[in-house]
This record gives sequence, structure tokens and C-alpha cells, in this order.
Amino acid sequence: MAQKLWEKSVQVDRDVEQFTVGKDREMDLYLAPFDILGSLAHISMLQSIGLLTAEELKQLTEELRNIYRDTETGKFLIEEGVEDVHSQVELLLTRKLGDIGKKIHSGRSRNDQVLVDLKLFTRSRLQNIVKKTKKLFDTLIAQSEKYKQVLMPGYTHLQVAMPSSFGLWFAAYAESLVDDLIVMQAAYRVCNRNPLGSAAGYGSSFPLNRTQTTDSLGFETMDYNVVYAQMGRGKTERIVASAITSIAATLAKLAFDACLYNSQNFAFIKLPDAFTTGSSIMPHKKNPDVFELTRAKCNKLQALPYQITLIANNLPSGYFRDLQIIKELFLPSFDELEECLNMVDLMISQIAVNEHILDDKRYDYMFSVEEVNRRVQTGTPFRDAYKQVGLEIEAGKFSPDKHIHHTHEGSIGNLCNDRITELMRKTIDSFDFARTEAAEARLLGR
Amino acid sequence: MAQKLWEKSVQVDRDVEQFTVGKDREMDLYLAPFDILGSLAHISMLQSIGLLTAEELKQLTEELRNIYRDTETGKFLIEEGVEDVHSQVELLLTRKLGDIGKKIHSGRSRNDQVLVDLKLFTRSRLQNIVKKTKKLFDTLIAQSEKYKQVLMPGYTHLQVAMPSSFGLWFAAYAESLVDDLIVMQAAYRVCNRNPLGSAAGYGSSFPLNRTQTTDSLGFETMDYNVVYAQMGRGKTERIVASAITSIAATLAKLAFDACLYNSQNFAFIKLPDAFTTGSSIMPHKKNPDVFELTRAKCNKLQALPYQITLIANNLPSGYFRDLQIIKELFLPSFDELEECLNMVDLMISQIAVNEHILDDKRYDYMFSVEEVNRRVQTGTPFRDAYKQVGLEIEAGKFSPDKHIHHTHEGSIGNLCNDRITELMRKTIDSFDFARTEAAEARLLGR
Amino acid sequence: MAQKLWEKSVQVDRDVEQFTVGKDREMDLYLAPFDILGSLAHISMLQSIGLLTAEELKQLTEELRNIYRDTETGKFLIEEGVEDVHSQVELLLTRKLGDIGKKIHSGRSRNDQVLVDLKLFTRSRLQNIVKKTKKLFDTLIAQSEKYKQVLMPGYTHLQVAMPSSFGLWFAAYAESLVDDLIVMQAAYRVCNRNPLGSAAGYGSSFPLNRTQTTDSLGFETMDYNVVYAQMGRGKTERIVASAITSIAATLAKLAFDACLYNSQNFAFIKLPDAFTTGSSIMPHKKNPDVFELTRAKCNKLQALPYQITLIANNLPSGYFRDLQIIKELFLPSFDELEECLNMVDLMISQIAVNEHILDDKRYDYMFSVEEVNRRVQTGTPFRDAYKQVGLEIEAGKFSPDKHIHHTHEGSIGNLCNDRITELMRKTIDSFDFARTEAAEARLLGR
Amino acid sequence: MAQKLWEKSVQVDRDVEQFTVGKDREMDLYLAPFDILGSLAHISMLQSIGLLTAEELKQLTEELRNIYRDTETGKFLIEEGVEDVHSQVELLLTRKLGDIGKKIHSGRSRNDQVLVDLKLFTRSRLQNIVKKTKKLFDTLIAQSEKYKQVLMPGYTHLQVAMPSSFGLWFAAYAESLVDDLIVMQAAYRVCNRNPLGSAAGYGSSFPLNRTQTTDSLGFETMDYNVVYAQMGRGKTERIVASAITSIAATLAKLAFDACLYNSQNFAFIKLPDAFTTGSSIMPHKKNPDVFELTRAKCNKLQALPYQITLIANNLPSGYFRDLQIIKELFLPSFDELEECLNMVDLMISQIAVNEHILDDKRYDYMFSVEEVNRRVQTGTPFRDAYKQVGLEIEAGKFSPDKHIHHTHEGSIGNLCNDRITELMRKTIDSFDFARTEAAEARLLGR
Repeated sequence: MAQKLWEKSVQVDRDVEQFTVGKDREMDLYLAPFDILGSLAHISMLQSIGLLTAEELKQLTEELRNIYRDTETGKFLIEEGVEDVHSQVELLLTRKLGDIGKKIHSGRSRNDQVLVDLKLFTRSRLQNIVKKTKKLFDTLIAQSEKYKQVLMPGYTHLQVAMPSSFGLWFAAYAESLVDDLIVMQAAYRVCNRNPLGSAAGYGSSFPLNRTQTTDSLGFETMDYNVVYAQMGRGKTERIVASAITSIAATLAKLAFDACLYNSQNFAFIKLPDAFTTGSSIMPHKKNPDVFELTRAKCNKLQALPYQITLIANNLPSGYFRDLQIIKELFLPSFDELEECLNMVDLMISQIAVNEHILDDKRYDYMFSVEEVNRRVQTGTPFRDAYKQVGLEIEAGKFSPDKHIHHTHEGSIGNLCNDRITELMRKTIDSFDFARTEAAEARLLGR
Repeated sequence: MAQKLWEKSVQVDRDVEQFTVGKDREMDLYLAPFDILGSLAHISMLQSIGLLTAEELKQLTEELRNIYRDTETGKFLIEEGVEDVHSQVELLLTRKLGDIGKKIHSGRSRNDQVLVDLKLFTRSRLQNIVKKTKKLFDTLIAQSEKYKQVLMPGYTHLQVAMPSSFGLWFAAYAESLVDDLIVMQAAYRVCNRNPLGSAAGYGSSFPLNRTQTTDSLGFETMDYNVVYAQMGRGKTERIVASAITSIAATLAKLAFDACLYNSQNFAFIKLPDAFTTGSSIMPHKKNPDVFELTRAKCNKLQALPYQITLIANNLPSGYFRDLQIIKELFLPSFDELEECLNMVDLMISQIAVNEHILDDKRYDYMFSVEEVNRRVQTGTPFRDAYKQVGLEIEAGKFSPDKHIHHTHEGSIGNLCNDRITELMRKTIDSFDFARTEAAEARLLGR
Repeated sequence: MAQKLWEKSVQVDRDVEQFTVGKDREMDLYLAPFDILGSLAHISMLQSIGLLTAEELKQLTEELRNIYRDTETGKFLIEEGVEDVHSQVELLLTRKLGDIGKKIHSGRSRNDQVLVDLKLFTRSRLQNIVKKTKKLFDTLIAQSEKYKQVLMPGYTHLQVAMPSSFGLWFAAYAESLVDDLIVMQAAYRVCNRNPLGSAAGYGSSFPLNRTQTTDSLGFETMDYNVVYAQMGRGKTERIVASAITSIAATLAKLAFDACLYNSQNFAFIKLPDAFTTGSSIMPHKKNPDVFELTRAKCNKLQALPYQITLIANNLPSGYFRDLQIIKELFLPSFDELEECLNMVDLMISQIAVNEHILDDKRYDYMFSVEEVNRRVQTGTPFRDAYKQVGLEIEAGKFSPDKHIHHTHEGSIGNLCNDRITELMRKTIDSFDFARTEAAEARLLGR
Repeated sequence: MAQKLWEKSVQVDRDVEQFTVGKDREMDLYLAPFDILGSLAHISMLQSIGLLTAEELKQLTEELRNIYRDTETGKFLIEEGVEDVHSQVELLLTRKLGDIGKKIHSGRSRNDQVLVDLKLFTRSRLQNIVKKTKKLFDTLIAQSEKYKQVLMPGYTHLQVAMPSSFGLWFAAYAESLVDDLIVMQAAYRVCNRNPLGSAAGYGSSFPLNRTQTTDSLGFETMDYNVVYAQMGRGKTERIVASAITSIAATLAKLAFDACLYNSQNFAFIKLPDAFTTGSSIMPHKKNPDVFELTRAKCNKLQALPYQITLIANNLPSGYFRDLQIIKELFLPSFDELEECLNMVDLMISQIAVNEHILDDKRYDYMFSVEEVNRRVQTGTPFRDAYKQVGLEIEAGKFSPDKHIHHTHEGSIGNLCNDRITELMRKTIDSFDFARTEAAEARLLGR
């Protein structure tokens, strides 16, 4: 049954086989639909250069689309004894179509096949990430607008320093996500290039038409140099992982703030009971487990580029089996990030803010700078204003005016959330997802 | 059913629940037998301070030993809807014994319970690692002895430099493992300390006898300070992970050498066909997949301390839910390292070495330094000897004498494998596994 | 003399002072010209909102431009006892202009001052990096074109696999640099945003015009939200460091290949004697120290994002002094990368390739796949062609035809270096350096 | 002048030379005294095997001791144009003694010379680290004893949870340092092995007596296998760096706590004005810069093993120039850690604690568990006690009894600081510094 493509007469040692297959069968399920998309583009090109007949193309296309549907409904499986997704697809094709099924391999190697699978998979999952990031962005902006009047202390060195607001706090994380998507867009572009046709990393003597597969798969362009196409394995994952890291770092910092502000020593925000854990005997204890776990998961994700670097680094050019292990780390990371984006979105939408924080006298002194500026603007020289306020504080006579009049761009009184939203819109538009969606639909005959 | 211990009237949000449980049920299976050992020691102590009757102790002990046997046979499961191993064990006890089952929690918190589970788990798995490391060590020494006469080129800068031997090469990695176990032994000691009794990290008002549980669990000593005991979570894992890293680095380097030496450009070693992959059309192609995957897995393992650091770092003292995520990374890493140790041991035992490497003239020049030294030792001043040999080489007249007479400790002619083996023996003895084994046997009534 | 801005009556402990100043005085020399640019933009804006008179603006502008010239000629120093660049500039201004000098601080905090310094510094140094990367790119493409006819073995698993060429090898690294600059361009955009006006991270009660300083400093846009502007510290550095990492990884891999190919066991390339180290007694030993050091330096650079993450991670929002330490790591990294780019460019331009590699019979088998494909294209069914060639090899009768006819995009016979060059051109154009140069020239009155 | 040892007729390219020397002349000053110690042991051995006369040994010994004294007084310099410490020492010897000076190189290579330098340097600096760690330990224990009666809240999830004490808090970090030194001791042992005699990593044809140099340098044993001795480069540094990381992590966590507790939202500790920075207009603002910088520096140190791994990883066995770069990272890290240990010791000794924290009603609920336990111990069934207290809290009638009676080992009432101190004493004793000190004194004739 399902013999390995390269297999020789000698039987591979059983332990060796188990070790080398590793988690591939589990991991390759992530890649299955993308493997089929790649094959659909490849066989269409093979027909155009005379390596498949029109009839063979028709049969293979139809059957591959059937298998694709099975990947959508969860019916597609990698059978016991079958090494990977490529072998499974070929097995299904030959069961149905006989030897024609084997022709999908002409002019390809498993090396460029998995390369294109990874690019298509990543491209697709990044689209999800962008969508979910946008959803969280909208939630943050909405909360910023809702609570833009509510002041809170601003800290430097974790020391009470200056007045801030929930309008600023929520929107700061929204703007952070804009920059994260700018980084992501570069990663997406590096990913959105066709490696198909690079074969084992040294090209093929078949007269392949790589421009055709580039177009039919909706890639922006191709990885031209075939040695570079192979070199992109590990590198693409690292670059994408760095971009994932950037979103993860934003979520982790937000989660850290939320855990801190949820402490009784701050009491700035309040999470609904259904979203915390606690103890009936300590009624004020509302453990922010979701934020803690988000923080930890996002911190873990921040190690991903380093894991990939450790594996891919100091290897000479050319394919090595080492790269297989990157899949185990890379593929599930999209699930993890999406899950965190979902949870943070849910939590942020549920946060209630404390509207009376500044009633506590311990925050009074943060208005002292405001007071100095106020006097400067009404004519008192800075040095004198500074001295006056300093003396009033020393004498315990300082009574803060808590009305803040910040007017410049991005300040408490002028959040510029519309501008930030516009930056986000432009950033997302630059991904041009419509083109790749259209290309994939054409391949699937949809 | 199986309500959470802290649960309040409010129902936890379903998504939140799923997110917070995460992989805990899967991960906690690693901990199950150790959780039971911890409970056996704890209840015995509870009885000694009057919090359990002798009869209750007897019943609980018997039932816990039954559950322990189920963990050995794979019958122990964490049921759907049960949060973790602690809840599952309690559930089983209360099903059998009623309310008595709940008493195993007196004077404990889940915090010190999982702390002790992790310490016992790690202690046990480190013992396996040491055993497998010793096995690989023995294989390497055996190969070193077997091939101690076979010379090979020694490289600096990957330039042919000096004569070396397979005796040296195999034994170098053996000695590397000795140092790795020295590091491991320190990690073992940090791990071999009792955190039980630290409760939620601030101790308990019950008159616990921590010395008793320390003794009955066979710990070397205890984590005295209860705040430190909690602080050890994350820290212990990081220290153990660093020690794992050390073995992994040795294996990865050995695997790198093997991949290089297996290349046709070196052809120093040969792997049996059953241990390589290849191509029937390129008969000389013997891909060393096992070594490549070992290298990649071990490189991945080398990221483990950094993952843990990223999660645990910059958290203030006291428990955080973040620590749960460390389990997902830490617990399976023992399987991964053991698997690599097994495979490398298997591969090393199968390696055939090329006994004719030095017939290739490209290696002749590496004997030039030997020749200079030879002349120096027979009376020629160094400068003159150096010049003579240099001129002979330049004139193409240099004819190397390939008989090597290195006599000093650790050199080609005097490998000192007996001394290295003695260092290994002493290192392993210092772990004192016998004591912990005896303690665990007593708790299990074996 | 030069008192610290925040200094109180109490004298700071001497050890504490030395510890807190750290390497700031050395590091801030990197920032000096950019600090002045920031001040020039700031005072012009201050005048427009009435906080400086036209005359004060004129005097301050003139003097700041003088100091700028001193930074260009190396005359600018941070004096003993002066804490940082900001204090030094103020000191120089007040020496010349009296109290007017202090007015450059109105509406700013040292927090947004250093933020804008870092952005301007990074923007400028990235321009250098891009320039040097382009130079190396051109050298690689030139070598690829020069040696496009010279074949070499292509490896998978470090096993001889398929024919490759120096045309492919050199150009692969050129194309790698294109993707690296795509990543860099995103980092540049994140960096090219104005944080000035965010003050201590909570904005100012002065009616600042941040749009004006954004325009006059040539920023693409601003970091709107003031809390986010502060949050950008550490984050911007990490994102830029990740982009640096990408170039560094390309250089490190190239260096690894070069070290390997320079080994006598490959002998694919030859470096001139003036570019290697060696030994007169081992004439064939040409140690590729430059490539080894490049590899090591670039591997070290790849740890930079991790270092920054470790420092900045798990800190709540708001300024912390921790961020100062990032400067020590981040600022010199540009020198290090530039140095490596210079050296690799120099080395690549000096490499001589071995035009007779394939004369060695050990590489014959890599033509077997070519031969099979050739027969397939002339009508033999694949399975038969495969069998024929396999049998010929087995019988020792396989005689390779070493004429390669690869025609598809990016293959040996069709390198597409023009397309890769076009990708590079477009990528560099997208940085739009002209705008920032023009803005800086205006500020400097040039 | 001072020609490079390996130099050929060809002049090395100037840029190449500058690049390859790099920071070596600066870095090698760290190694100078240890280089001389290594040479003193080496020449004594050379004489014993007949490669030096007694008179030559006498002259060389005397002169080397003179140079050693210069390294102590700061007079030793590496001159312009001299590549490294080894060349400088030889230059000084030949200036004084003529050609005899060159004989110190017989039977050595620069490879094992730098190996032994690094081992001796590290061994010496670790002794300093241990001393300073002990000093901080003593300070922490003293503060713990001083404030053992002062209660503070204990947190889980940063939620107020249980009573803790400053006695516990200070001593927790003391005990953490014990475990850090256990890890350090393993690193010390790996380091305390003689690599001298391994030459370029393949041994020597001279009849060296490595046992003699092992003894005279006071090493515990030797790195026997010469290939392993060379492999220890990078590995030893990584293992030591991991141990440094462990102390750094303890300091960083302590610093994090201190920054948090110094915030007005906690106000648990107070730092003297001379040890903080602030603002005269915000009198309550006491920025804990020293703790922040310590945290950042220690977080940076935690990246050190990763940097070393990135450089040393995936290199085959044998020397590579890459290893030189590790010196730049490794050698200064001892200064950095020592500086942090000094500052933390100073700061901890200056901390004043708030003795009235628990007067704040927000901490009342953390006594609820105590109250339940109290009732359980006086006979109320747990379930009833729990319900009673819960209802009292709900009704606002819960009035906490703030007298804590924790008696078990390591709890508030029974800190076991004497036991922890005993663990520390034993750990430090196990380093056996006396032996290495004695050996070095003998070599220096002191």
C-alpha cells in the first residue's frame, strides 16, 4: 500500500519511520486545501505545455475539487500508513482515476509543493488574522469613544504622573494594532509570491510556465530564483512569525494593563463575574484569568521567531529535513493568535470602567503640572508659576482643578480616533485580499 | 457535576471556560501519578497532626494507591467536564469514599499541589533522561574504542588542519554528555525540594509538618520560605529547561557533524540503508533524515528556556495563571528529548566509518605540523624545521608520514576513555536516585 | 553646574548617579544631530503658537544649526557632569543665549524628545542600510551574470542532488535582499511617524500644533494617540530590529555557504590571500575569517529583537527607565550591520569560482533526473525512462550529458535577474527618502 | 613590527584586518592576567618534559610575573598594531629576553591558550559573583529578620489574597539566591577543567604532561578528550551564562516587586530621596530608577545564553573564528551582573517598609481564610465555617482578627532563616575556592 515515493527495496527501520513522520500527518491537515489549490494551478499549467491532455486535466480538476470539498467538511483524512498530505491526495486520485493521478507530480518535487502549500496556507490565515484584528480595533475605538470623558491617572515609572483618560487608553491599543498590521502587510507580501516550479530548489528541465501558475494562484509575483525559492522556507515563516509577534506583544501589554487595573490597588476596571474566577469567601477577588492566559499565550508566541531561527539558522543553502519541524511550531500558532484575538475582543467589550477614580486624593498631585501651565498661559513666567504651585503643595493648600483642556492632536480632548481609523482602513486595503480570493474561486470553479 | 472548587453562583462564560481550561486536561495526565504521590504524603502528615483519623487515612491511602495503579495501566482519565487532575482525583475518591475524599485538600491549595506535582514529575523524568544519556554515553565510548585506530582529518575553520581520529570524535561527544549531566544534577537538586505546605504561596494557619512530607516524598530538603516556594514555579522549569538545552546542544552538534560527514564531499561515515531516505535513481544519495530531524528537534528544545523566560519574566511575586501555559511547553519536552536520545543512540550504534579517508591526497598537508614537531624533537631548531617542511611542500616534495604518535592525556594515542567513564560514573552517583525510589515505594506500599 | 532638570535639594547618591547615567553619554552621541533637528522643528512650532517670539526663534535656530555643524565635524561632546544630549544642547544654548536657551523645552518632556530623536536617528540609519544593501545586491547580480554559465552541484540534505549554477547561487542571495528590504520598508514606515507632542506620554495642555512638526520633520504621519506614542518606545526598536535580523540572516547564510564552499572538501570558491588567514606550512589552508566573523556578528544581531523583547515585555503602559538600556543595544547595531554589509560586498566582489567542479565524477549522478526528464520529453513513459536510467547507473554505464536546458523563469538558463532587479528598484523607491531629505535640509537652512 | 604568527608574504587587506581584529584588543585586557597564569603553568610543564632548560624557565617565570604585576596595576596595555593578548605578552618577553620569549608557544596553539584563559577568567569572576551574591543574601536575611513582624498583603493574580509579611518577602529572595548558586556551582565545575594541551583541538605530538598543568592551575580535573576540550568553547560560556541568567532573573523579579511596591497605589516601601529621581512639583513622585535599570540590565543579561547559542549553534566540531564574537558578549557580562548585585544590595539595605499597610480596609478580606481555618481548628466543620464567614462578609459584618498564627516551616511565624542560611553556607563551601587561590598564588610565587 501507499509506498513512499522514494522508497527503495530496503525496508526502513520502524522506529526511524515513526520518528521521521513525526507529527506530519497531523500538521498536514492544516495544509490539505492549499495543497489541492496548488495542484489545480499546476495541472492547468501542465496541460498548457502539453504534459497533460485536456481530458486528463478535466478529470483531475473535477476530482481535486471533490477532495477540496472534503477538506471543507472535515471528511478529508490522512490514512494510517500514508506519510503526508501529498501522498494522500495522490492516493485518492489514483483510486478514482488510476495512473492519471500520478501525473500531478510531473515537473514538481515535494519541496516546491510544500513551499506553495505553506505560502497559500499562510496567506489565507493572515487574512483571518487581519479580519479579527480589525474587529478588535473597532471594539477598542468604540470603548475609547464611549469613555472618552472618563479620566484616569497616567503613570511614569508606575508613579502617578499626569492625567490620562480611558479614551486615550483604549485607543492607544487600537493605534498599536495599525502599526502591527503594517508589519503584517510586509510579511504578507513576502509570503504572497509563487515558489512553484522551483522543484527541489534547482528548477526543472521541463518547460514550465511559472508566470501562469503565479497568475492562477493570485500571487503578487513569484520567487524568481529557484535557489531563493527554496531558501524562502524557514525565512518566510520567520518573517511572518515576527509579524505575529507584533500583534501578540500588543495583546500581551494590553492584558498586563488590564490585570494591573483590575487589582484592588488600582480598581480602574471591572470585569463581569462570568469572565473572572474567584472565591465566594473573598468576594472582592476577581481573578482576571483570561487576561493572564492571553498574556502568557502571547508571550509564548513571541518566542516563535526565535524557535524558527534556532532551527533554520546556520544551515547552508538547499533543502534539509530540519525544516519539517518548523511546521509543528508555525501552523498551530495561527490558531493560538486567533483565539487570543477573539478573547481579548470579548473581554474588552465587557470591561466596565471606574468613573470615580480621581475622587481619591492620592491622585491630586498629578494636576500640578497642568496648574503651572495654566498660569504660564495666563502670563505668569514659568519659573514663578512653578514656585507658586510648589509652595502651595508644600503648604497642603494645593487644590487641583480637574478640568483638563488638552486640544492638540492625539490628546485627551482631541483623540483623533477618526484619523487612526483612516490609517487602519488604508492599511487593510493595501493587502488586496480581493485578488487572491478571486483567483482561488476560479481554481475551485466557484 | 464536578463543580469547580471556586465556583460561584454565576455561570462562567462558555468561551472563557474553554479558553481557561486550555490544554490542562491533556497536560495533567503527565502529572497524575505524581499528584497521587503528593496526596499520599500529605494525608499521612494530616493524620499525624490530627486532621485525619487513622481510619480515614487508611481508606484514602488504599484508594489513592488504586488510582495510582490506574495511572500506570493507562486507565486513569480526566473526564469531560472535569477541570484538572486534582479535581478528577477528588471526584474518584468521593465517588468511592464520600465526603472523606474531600479531606485530602485540608491544609493545601491547588498552588502547592501543582508545585509538588511538577517537582515530582520532573524528578522522575530527569531520572529517565539520565539513564538514556548514560546509554548513549556507553555507545559512544564503545564506538570510540572500536575505531580508535581510524584516522580522520581534523578541521579548523572547516579547513583541513591536523590529524584526528574516530576514537577522538566519538569520545568527544561522550565527554560532552558528562558535563551536561553535571549541569543536570544542579537542576535536579533545585527540583528535589519540597514545596508542599506553601499553600497559595503564603503558608497556612494549620500546624502542618513540612519536614514530614519532605522526608516521606524523599526530597533532599524543602523550599523553606513559602513565598519562595511559589516563586519556584517557572524558575524550576527554566533551570531544568536550561539543563535539557545542554544535552540537546550536544546532540544537535553531533547530528550536524554526522550530516556533514555523510555528505559525498566528506564520505567519512556511512549509514545503513534502513536508516536513511534516498532515491533509487541517485544511488549515492543517502539522506540522513534522522540526524536532520534530531538536529531540528534539539534546536527547538534549545528555545525552551527562552519561552519560559518570556512567560515568567517581569511578573511580580505571587501566583499568576500565566504559569499554566508553561506546562504545555515543559511537560512534553521530556518526551522529545528522550526520543532524540533513543534515536541518536540507535544511529550511532549503526554508523560505519570509512577506514580509508586519508588515502585522498587532499589531506596530506595536515601532517606538515607533525613533521615539523618530529624534526624539532630530533634536534632541529623549530625555525629551521618549519622552513624545511615549508620548502618541501612548495616544491611538491612533501611526503607525509601518517603514523601519529600522540601520547598525552586525551590525545589520539591516549584517549583516556576510562577516566571519562569514571567522571560519568561519579556524576550519576551524585544524583542519589535510590533514595527517591525508596521513598516513592514506601508511599505506594511496594 | 549643569544641574539635572528634576533635581531636588537632596543630593543623589554618587553610585546611584553613576549607575543611572550608565552609558547614556556615550550613546547619546548617536542621537545628537537628530536631537537638534527635533528642536529646530519644535521651536518653529512654538513660535507659531505664540510661545516664542520671532526674534527668539531666529537666535535659537541659528545657534542650533551651529551645534548641528559641530555634530557633523565631531566637535560636539557631552561634557563631564552633563547627564545626556538634551542637557548638553540646552547648556550650550544658555551659554550663548542666556535664559532663552531654556525655552526650547516648553511643551515638551524628555520623553517625547528622546522618542523623536530615536525615530529620526533610525530613519536616517535605515537609509544607509538600504543604500549598502543595494550595493551588495548589485555586486551579487554582477557576479551572477558573470558566472551564469558555471555549473555547480545543488544539494538537498547536503547530498549531491541536482545541477545548479553560480548564476543561481549569487542571485539567490540578491533576491533574498529584496524580501529583506520589503520587511525593512514596513519597519521604516512604523518609524517614520512623529511622536513629538506626546510629552510624558499623556500630552500637553499647551495648544501644540503636531501637524506642523510632522510636516517640518518630513514624517509620513504622526503617532496620533499620545499614550501610543510613548508605547512606541521599545516597540519601534523591536520592529526595526526584526527587520535588521532579516538582512543579518541573509548575510549569515551566505557566509555559511562561503565557508563551506571554501573548504577543501568542496573547493567551489577561492578567496584572495589578502582576504584570508592561513599558515605558511599548510599552503592550502585559507581560513575564511571574514565570513566566519560576519556569520557570528549577524547571528549575534539576530538576538537583538529578543533582547529588546525581554526588556520591554510585561511592562504596563507608560514610561519606565528600563527603556534606556535598549539604546545600548539598539544604537550600535546599525554600525555592526553596516560593517557586515561592507565586508560581504567586498568579499563577494573578490570571490573567484572554480569552473571545473563538475569534472569530479562524484557529481555525475546528479544528472540522472535530467536524463529521465529528457527521455520523457522525447516520448518515453516516465516509469520506463526512470527504470532505464536506474539500470544504467546500477551497471556503471550511466554517462551524464552535462548540458543543461532549463528554460523556465528563475532557472539556470533563465535567471530573470532583470526582474529581480526591477523588484529591488520598486522596493527602494517606496521608501521615498527624497521627502525626508528635503525636510531635514529645510530645517538646517541648506 | 609584531607580525601576526601565521602571516604570509601577502599583506592582509586593511579593512579585513580591522574587521577581523574587531574588539579583541579591548576584550583581551580582561584575559591578560589569566593568560599569564596559563603560561606560567605551561612553561613549568615544558621544562619538566625537557623542552625548556631550568634557566630558561627561571627567566621566563620571573618576567611573566613582572607582566602579571602590570596587569594588576593597569600598566599592561595591548599596543597599537598588536593583535591580541598572546602576541603582546610574547612581544614583551622577546623585548626583554630575546628568542627565549618565543618558546612559551611550544606545544600550544592559540586555541588552547584562549581556552585556558577563558576558563581561568571565568573561574575567577564567578568567585566574585558568589561573594557579592552572599553579601546581598546577608542583607536580605537581615531585613527579613528586622521586619519579620510587619504584615503585608499577599497576592495571587495580583488580587489581594492572604496575609504575608516583609519577613517572608525579603527572605524569599534570599532563598532564591541559594538555588541560583547551586546552578552556578555546576557551571563553575564545568568551567574548572583544564583544556590546556588540546592545542588546535587535536592534541600535540609533544609529550605534554596535562596532569601537571591541571594540578598547577588548581583545576578540579581536565577536559580529557582534546576534541571535546575545543568543543567546550561556546559551551562553557553558554552554561555559565545560563547560571548568570538565574541570578539575573532573581534580581529582576525583586526589582519588579520593588517598583510595584514603591508605586503610590501600593506604598509598601519607601526609598530614600538620594536613591530616587523625582520632581519638586510632584513631591510624592519617587521614581525608582535604580530598580528599573537593574530590571532592564538583568533582563538584558537573560538574553546572553541565547546570543551565545545563536553564534555557536549548528557549527560542526572544530574551531571557528565565530567564537571570537562570544567574547564581546560574555566578558563584560560579569561587570554588568556585579554592578547590579552591588546596587541591589545597596538599595535593599536602604528600603524602609510601611508598617501600617493593613490599616487600609481594602485588605480586610484576606483574613477570611484565616478565620475559616480558625473555626475549623476549634471544631466547626469546614463547610459550616466557610458558610458562616461568607455570610458575615456578605452582610458587611466581617471583622478580621489580624493576629496571624502560622507555625509551620517557612511560614510567617517560623521563617527558618537559619536553615536557609545553612543551605547557603553549604552551597558556597562546595565551590572550594581555597584550592584555586592556593594554586594561583604558587604560580605567582606569592
